[in-house]
Amino acid sequence: MSADLPTPATDRYFEDYPPGVAVEYGPIAVTEAEILDFARRYDPQPFHLDPARAAAGPFGGLVASGWHTASLMMRVLVDRFLSRVASLGSPGVDELRWLAPVRPDDALTVRVTVLTARRLRSKPDRGLIQSQQEVFN
Amino acid sequence: MSADLPTPATDRYFEDYPPGVAVEYGPIAVTEAEILDFARRYDPQPFHLDPARAAAGPFGGLVASGWHTASLMMRVLVDRFLSRVASLGSPGVDELRWLAPVRPDDALTVRVTVLTARRLRSKPDRGLIQSQQEVFN
Repeated sequence: MSADLPTPATDRYFEDYPPGVAVEYGPIAVTEAEILDFARRYDPQPFHLDPARAAAGPFGGLVASGWHTASLMMRVLVDRFLSRVASLGSPGVDELRWLAPVRPDDALTVRVTVLTARRLRSKPDRGLIQSQQEVFN
Repeated sequence: MSADLPTPATDRYFEDYPPGVAVEYGPIAVTEAEILDFARRYDPQPFHLDPARAAAGPFGGLVASGWHTASLMMRVLVDRFLSRVASLGSPGVDELRWLAPVRPDDALTVRVTVLTARRLRSKPDRGLIQSQQEVFN
């Protein structure tokens, strides 16, 4: 497990994401204020929005929206993993699983593993990097 | 296609989400200011963050973060589709595809279709509803 890719983000291209490479980034501080902010705007369910109702709810306390967790993960990818010069965006996500609640004062780590890298037949000047992100406290 | 589920959100239970039911919610107004706000916090790639650089980028203009689009979709689910009394959260997403860019001044519609509904063998007092969300302009 490396602390970062060897090539700086300002000079990363397709070749710099070989399958099998794994890096870890963190810690990402999770605050109650930010959980509530995200929930108010995008996911106002009681267990994301209201500490008192959350305490009596299915998670026994306030938990972050799963979309908030994904967004925190994305911020780390943008800051640390994606190329600043060659990234063209992503077509999507094959599978997203919320395995454990994210709670206030958690300190998250994001582990990124390159799974596959292939040049596109339809557009041979570019490639598709498939990666797995694991977020844990 | 219905405008909403027949049962009010304050009285929706497992039985009120039968497979095959489809509803549409919208319009959701997308603003440049909100695209930029989300990007600054969670996805500061140039094509989400900077209209001038975005114009020269792969989408030919500013586009919303895919996580922003997902979060806007979630807000509609919370406001209109999910039960206010029986929802216990979600274990995840089977597949997420960003098929077309979302741009400033788009007016999105979310179509929700219930695909499957099954009682959990491990916890027979609850069920798992699998739904598909399609977001379009």
